[in-house]
Amino acid sequence: MSVIYERVALIGLGLIAGSMALAMREQGLAREIVGHARSLETRETALQIGLVDQVFASAAEAAAGADLIVLAVPVGAMDAVAAEIAPHLKPGATVTDVGSVKQAVVQAVAPHIPAGVHFVPGHPLAGTEHSGPRAGFASLYQNRWWLFTPAEGCDEAAIARLETLVQSMGAKTERMDPQHHDLVLAVTSHTPHLIAYTMVGVADHLKRVTESEVVQYSAAGFRDFTRIAASDPTMWRDVFLQNKDAVLDILGRFTEELFVLQRAIRMGDGAHLHDYFTRTRAIRRGIIEAGQDTAAPDFGRGGTKS
Amino acid sequence: MSVIYERVALIGLGLIAGSMALAMREQGLAREIVGHARSLETRETALQIGLVDQVFASAAEAAAGADLIVLAVPVGAMDAVAAEIAPHLKPGATVTDVGSVKQAVVQAVAPHIPAGVHFVPGHPLAGTEHSGPRAGFASLYQNRWWLFTPAEGCDEAAIARLETLVQSMGAKTERMDPQHHDLVLAVTSHTPHLIAYTMVGVADHLKRVTESEVVQYSAAGFRDFTRIAASDPTMWRDVFLQNKDAVLDILGRFTEELFVLQRAIRMGDGAHLHDYFTRTRAIRRGIIEAGQDTAAPDFGRGGTKS
Repeated sequence: MSVIYERVALIGLGLIAGSMALAMREQGLAREIVGHARSLETRETALQIGLVDQVFASAAEAAAGADLIVLAVPVGAMDAVAAEIAPHLKPGATVTDVGSVKQAVVQAVAPHIPAGVHFVPGHPLAGTEHSGPRAGFASLYQNRWWLFTPAEGCDEAAIARLETLVQSMGAKTERMDPQHHDLVLAVTSHTPHLIAYTMVGVADHLKRVTESEVVQYSAAGFRDFTRIAASDPTMWRDVFLQNKDAVLDILGRFTEELFVLQRAIRMGDGAHLHDYFTRTRAIRRGIIEAGQDTAAPDFGRGGTKS
Repeated sequence: MSVIYERVALIGLGLIAGSMALAMREQGLAREIVGHARSLETRETALQIGLVDQVFASAAEAAAGADLIVLAVPVGAMDAVAAEIAPHLKPGATVTDVGSVKQAVVQAVAPHIPAGVHFVPGHPLAGTEHSGPRAGFASLYQNRWWLFTPAEGCDEAAIARLETLVQSMGAKTERMDPQHHDLVLAVTSHTPHLIAYTMVGVADHLKRVTESEVVQYSAAGFRDFTRIAASDPTMWRDVFLQNKDAVLDILGRFTEELFVLQRAIRMGDGAHLHDYFTRTRAIRRGIIEAGQDTAAPDFGRGGTKS
């Protein structure tokens, strides 16, 4: 695999950036990888475990001279980071991000990008419940989708080069409008996460059932919700604040649907329930066929770090 | 491991009964295992793959002469099955079930049990999204909870013997009141399942986002919901019809909680969201500590058949 970018700067050194670093090293996709994180401890860990060749105490220093700059910070922090690094960006450099929402990122970052620098917003559909510099692993992006939302008129070669980078990490790429991205993700990710959080919260508040019982007997389906609900609180707070309209849209549909099922239960309408569950099982099979899951245990994630 | 029951009859030969058969064989817990399923194909498969030593075309024939009879049919079918087998039960035999709800099973089955036969309702908190005689595996019950809800005055030795059986399969046992069981399960399993079904249904109905996108980009959290939503429709229809009161109670709490979060999103209340998500993360850690999950991939389910 050949070098695609001479110098890559990772702003933020958590699960996503760390996995990118490990994948780039494994495939030899970058000559140099440098990074910045706000906390000294994170910077030191990243250096110590070999994620990056150098760390910097400021985002600006990390971004200077880099060919690719990856914004891997919470969406709420992107405005300030983009403003800080903008004067230091090399002409011809590419700036990308890995945020879970795209319209808000474009609004926050695009105004700061100087002429001659390419802005290619992106979103890898990958992750685990773990956070921090030690959480990453090189195979995170294998067979996962990486979505890009470049603006009209963005430099085609710059987009293609970034697509090649992530494809070399094992990802499949797709381009779309930021608004469309945010709606699709509201359906497939953001609202499911909110629902999982809510169910765990209900269990937490319930006094008639002891907490230890909820915890002990949680292998019964609830466990899957708690895994989703263990995601990084800061990242998810920003996702909901920044993808508000799409999430509220989907939430409204969800509660309407839930009330229909609730009513079927109250009225003992077994046929309605059975039809509904049969239909949803078919969607599950569609997902396995699309290669986005496997019937195998571990979702086929052999070698995942725990 | 020594033989605990001479002759075990499995009424129903799906995932749960099949796994019991394989575990009993592996540990030498029964001298003879026989079975009944309604479909000829299932009976033939069960025999062919060695789940059972003999199959019978009727539940009554299977139950006759058995020391332990396991009712592993949908909860809605238990009344009829219990009525059919009752005249054929050997004195001193134990009847158990594996249904996900307990009050409804007790109401359906207990009236048919003759004097001298022990009725020990049970519920193993284990399962996968797969169904049928080929879906089972011997390690399904390893480290899983198996709850029993015997009535006051039930024979202690009969209960203890059944507990020993499932403990020998690797399960941990607990006894509780059927009403309490149904509430705990409404929280940890039934309502989460309904919610997962609903979210998948919303995605299915949405016309603005194409079905292929929902399917393609479902690695983003939605995938976990679809796995839950792929559970057996008949079993789950019966669970909701039969655990109506507890499920409606929990559903009401859930929608109240969801509206609080929805309001926080609409109002941009990031602090509220962050607090909430931080609290739920702690519950996740509690579950890992209780040994009911692992941070390892595959939920530690090494050797699961796909």
